[in-house]
Amino acid sequence: MAQEQQLEVVNNGRTERTGWLLNSPDPPGFFHEIFSSTRRTILPHGTRNHSSLPKKSSASKAFSFLQGLFPILEWGRNYRATKFKRDLMAGLTLASLCIPQSIGYANLAKLDPQYGLYTSVVPPFIYAFMGSSREIAIGPVAVVSLLLSSLIQKVVDPAVDPVGYRRLVFTATFFTGTFQAVFGLFRLGFLVDFLSHATVVGFMGGAAIVIGLQQLKGLLGISHFTTKTDVISVLKAWYPLNFVLGCSFLIFILITRFIGRRNRKLFWLPAIAPLVSVILSTLFVYLTKADKHGINIVKHFKGGLNPSSVHELQFNSTHVAEAAKIGIICAVIALTEAIAVGRSFASVKGYHLDGNKEMVAMGFMNIIGSLTSCYVATGSFSRTAVNFTAGCETVVSNIVMATTVLVSLQLFTRLLYYTPLAILASIILSALPGLIDINEAYNIWKVDKLDFIVCVGAFLGVLFHSVEIGLLVAVVISFVKVIVGSIRPSTEVLGRVPGTSTFSNVIQYPMATKVPGLLIIRINSGSLCFANANSIRERILLRILRLLGDENEENGKDNIRVLVLDISNVMGIDTSAIIALEELHRELVSRGIELAFASPKWQVMSKLKLAKFVDKVGRGRFFLNVEDAIDVFFDPNMSASALHNC
Amino acid sequence: MAQEQQLEVVNNGRTERTGWLLNSPDPPGFFHEIFSSTRRTILPHGTRNHSSLPKKSSASKAFSFLQGLFPILEWGRNYRATKFKRDLMAGLTLASLCIPQSIGYANLAKLDPQYGLYTSVVPPFIYAFMGSSREIAIGPVAVVSLLLSSLIQKVVDPAVDPVGYRRLVFTATFFTGTFQAVFGLFRLGFLVDFLSHATVVGFMGGAAIVIGLQQLKGLLGISHFTTKTDVISVLKAWYPLNFVLGCSFLIFILITRFIGRRNRKLFWLPAIAPLVSVILSTLFVYLTKADKHGINIVKHFKGGLNPSSVHELQFNSTHVAEAAKIGIICAVIALTEAIAVGRSFASVKGYHLDGNKEMVAMGFMNIIGSLTSCYVATGSFSRTAVNFTAGCETVVSNIVMATTVLVSLQLFTRLLYYTPLAILASIILSALPGLIDINEAYNIWKVDKLDFIVCVGAFLGVLFHSVEIGLLVAVVISFVKVIVGSIRPSTEVLGRVPGTSTFSNVIQYPMATKVPGLLIIRINSGSLCFANANSIRERILLRILRLLGDENEENGKDNIRVLVLDISNVMGIDTSAIIALEELHRELVSRGIELAFASPKWQVMSKLKLAKFVDKVGRGRFFLNVEDAIDVFFDPNMSASALHNC
Repeated sequence: MAQEQQLEVVNNGRTERTGWLLNSPDPPGFFHEIFSSTRRTILPHGTRNHSSLPKKSSASKAFSFLQGLFPILEWGRNYRATKFKRDLMAGLTLASLCIPQSIGYANLAKLDPQYGLYTSVVPPFIYAFMGSSREIAIGPVAVVSLLLSSLIQKVVDPAVDPVGYRRLVFTATFFTGTFQAVFGLFRLGFLVDFLSHATVVGFMGGAAIVIGLQQLKGLLGISHFTTKTDVISVLKAWYPLNFVLGCSFLIFILITRFIGRRNRKLFWLPAIAPLVSVILSTLFVYLTKADKHGINIVKHFKGGLNPSSVHELQFNSTHVAEAAKIGIICAVIALTEAIAVGRSFASVKGYHLDGNKEMVAMGFMNIIGSLTSCYVATGSFSRTAVNFTAGCETVVSNIVMATTVLVSLQLFTRLLYYTPLAILASIILSALPGLIDINEAYNIWKVDKLDFIVCVGAFLGVLFHSVEIGLLVAVVISFVKVIVGSIRPSTEVLGRVPGTSTFSNVIQYPMATKVPGLLIIRINSGSLCFANANSIRERILLRILRLLGDENEENGKDNIRVLVLDISNVMGIDTSAIIALEELHRELVSRGIELAFASPKWQVMSKLKLAKFVDKVGRGRFFLNVEDAIDVFFDPNMSASALHNC
Repeated sequence: MAQEQQLEVVNNGRTERTGWLLNSPDPPGFFHEIFSSTRRTILPHGTRNHSSLPKKSSASKAFSFLQGLFPILEWGRNYRATKFKRDLMAGLTLASLCIPQSIGYANLAKLDPQYGLYTSVVPPFIYAFMGSSREIAIGPVAVVSLLLSSLIQKVVDPAVDPVGYRRLVFTATFFTGTFQAVFGLFRLGFLVDFLSHATVVGFMGGAAIVIGLQQLKGLLGISHFTTKTDVISVLKAWYPLNFVLGCSFLIFILITRFIGRRNRKLFWLPAIAPLVSVILSTLFVYLTKADKHGINIVKHFKGGLNPSSVHELQFNSTHVAEAAKIGIICAVIALTEAIAVGRSFASVKGYHLDGNKEMVAMGFMNIIGSLTSCYVATGSFSRTAVNFTAGCETVVSNIVMATTVLVSLQLFTRLLYYTPLAILASIILSALPGLIDINEAYNIWKVDKLDFIVCVGAFLGVLFHSVEIGLLVAVVISFVKVIVGSIRPSTEVLGRVPGTSTFSNVIQYPMATKVPGLLIIRINSGSLCFANANSIRERILLRILRLLGDENEENGKDNIRVLVLDISNVMGIDTSAIIALEELHRELVSRGIELAFASPKWQVMSKLKLAKFVDKVGRGRFFLNVEDAIDVFFDPNMSASALHNC
């Protein structure tokens, strides 16, 4: 007993720690993990704790449920007139930018202009009640408009069958909303993450160039519609008067933006410039009767409230599968933009945005939108920035904006008859530079070359083939990157960082010290599996053979006695890898080299125990950290024979 | 200066260590890695060191090159008569097992029996000169024979066009050899690893059952050939006399095997039992003229040396693409079996087998085989075990075996005319139980449930569809498993393990201690990327929000002040993940919580520096290990303001 105690003192509790490692409780089993991960995915977080709370009355329960669904019930109670004043100003600024943009984007979506305005009325209202972002500006956006038209015109040509085209747009919008709501309800928000940052940067850039080339058509005054979105079919003849008018106002808008950037107080100038352009150019055409001289004008413009489109949805047509497919693509793209926008502003203001709740809100706003003649709405990056700069406090600015658009629809739409198409093109064109983020692409190149390939893949795919192919290419490259990164066999030799018990890469830290006769190798692959275990085994063995046999090594011939394998980075191991480790063990034993394992992860340790690998190698060969492993082999108080009794 | 020195003493060199971390040399860049990994793959290892060796004469260089290609030149010089005696015994034992098996497997490959014997002559000779395994027994094997016939008879029906079928077999064998040699020369050996242990176990089991059901046909005496390998089309009528004969000898073989297992000295009994069965049954049929009474016999049997098959190879036919496709499948399967066999025996004897060299040897033996009327040969598991047990010393036992088969081909084949087909079926059937490894399948189930799914996928795919589909299913599941395992968002809370500076999972080590006001979270995903970074960010944030707000936590409300993020396990990071970390940082700052990073990996640190993330968060927030990070925040000598000056 006394001797045992002394040994305990000598080895500083190492034996006890090895005991902790070997006898730690079992990690959650496979089925338990599947179950708990499903539960965590389906059920909202925090459910676990609710059971221990004092029971609420059912009325108060219902109210807190409603509060969860409609956040307005929560913040609405603290809403004050001072806040409203700021929201009112922001909302009016937003509306002045939103009206011309909506008309332009409807044009991009190959719909009549009023549908863009409709989309700026109903979805913002719904979102105001259900959403939790305070800054996001809801409405039609350029990329989704392009996406919708490029996907749907493959099924129905809007020039040939405009009614059928519109019906398919509403049906696709309904599916978009449904998918978004389902993503949110079943907490599948991670699906949106599959579009990586690099994908989004490349995709947005490609889409912006495609939109730009399409809009050049409007600016040049070409009236012929093409159903394709690629570069070549868009470049056609031009008509000078439209071009001069469009360019003049494009320059005007760009100058106001430049001024707005130089002087923060004049932020409203670029925001109202598009509306001013529309009013001025419309007046110009009306007064000079320029439409008789070749200026293309909007013409079709139906005013009034959003009409119902319930009967326009088609669920029994042959196109329903197409509509669902388009719906899922639009759902993901729209959510990607909205959540990126919402989250970045939420983190500036320091509140937390629940992605899944946002998806439910977006879903419902699009479902109800599809029943009231709206197409897919989402959070617009440029308008959200304006809303934020204009000092919005809550989502009430969206309500103000929607009301303003509604009033305009009732009163002023008749006046938009003479609006030149070239102006709409110049408004859309002026919004595009914000989508092409060359700086960010350069940053991606600097930080991660493979990510840059993803970015370029998305860009070129969208530009030269189609939106879907661009996204598919980027997602596939992204996942191949994950696989390659995970199974790349990577090992590093460790040394002790002076003054610590940390062991680090000896190339990264040249000051790290090695112990003669000892080799510490860390496996740097998260998953030690069939695809890399043999390469890693071979690498380790070759390094040892070289050290043993090669007299040309810098340090001269090193008589390696012990190999400590730091497997702290190995998060998962499969049966092929365990067999490779067994082979490595046999190969080392036959060369008289001791093998020890340091810092195995919980799941890995459990699998090694289940596979009887721990018993084969010896229970005393597993250590909590590298230091303990070294101490055992190089501690004069601990004989090698004691090792086997551990 | 003095004050500085004192600070140095107080913080135990921590500042210096942070400097090491931040100023470590750049890791190898992207292009350098691509280049060096390509070089490492293409060029054999050790090239780097050769330049520093004293220059050899060109003759000695040529000799050492030849030695690399033909290992026999190396070990042949030390070959002694005592070794030959043991090799002779092993070779003869091997031949007695090999002759009946070869005839049976040729039948399985739907070729005339002599082709099986041819395949046991040329490939073993070639391998003996080029291969480096000492125990492996080369020749036809059951699974590859099945694979070849099941793939080729989809293109040419052997019953309709036996010559065309045979030509395609040789062409496919040629491609098999070519692919194997290319894999070896370009060091693509890792491709073979894509068939994981679980895949191989499932695949072998499925193939064995398919072979067994096919052979039942021979045992039952059904002469009708079916071109399909699935279960149902094989179960047909039967003929009793064949069955009785086949079963009797099957029972005889199984009994000898049982005896051989009980008494290690009688290992030769099961090895020669098949040959004895063939001789006895052939004599029986010859003497009783049982072939007139419905016993099916071999009949076609051409004796003599391997004829040339150079002119049978077809490279300009329409089937060449098919042959190449079949070749690559056979190449991978044959290599998988051979390398698994070779490596497991090499590790028992304690020598190292170079996988790529083995592939070159296998490739050449199959290329030359395809020119001399052989079909695909590889290392047989059952015969290698017999060779090993019989005490072989070198690959000379293969030469002995091949010579014996050659002599038999010359002298005794005429006698095999009367061999009953049922005996061949019973020999193949007796080899099948070794392929069905239920124990191993159970072990896989115990250790890794997902690996078991891979195993079952391969098994059911082969059994109910086809060989290719079975393999495809298993490989796809294996890779999905790698992806899911790598991107699964996983975090754990750490505490200090008493008596060490190691921080471990507090659930795994309940004795680990936490510091009040401090939360240490480790990210347990090897790749922090687009697919999991946001989920991880959200998880961490929710945990903090719960700790801050929830009064029902066990420890009561904990006023978290500092979050230390241990990113030691993160081996790769992409731009999406860096953005997620930036958001996390902003969210924590807005809640007044300090964020520090511990133990970043080299590549990760370099990317964080390139992305300017280190500057945004503060250079003093990155630490070599968790302990240093804690010391800074909880050390009274180090004020918070000093932190920002680091």
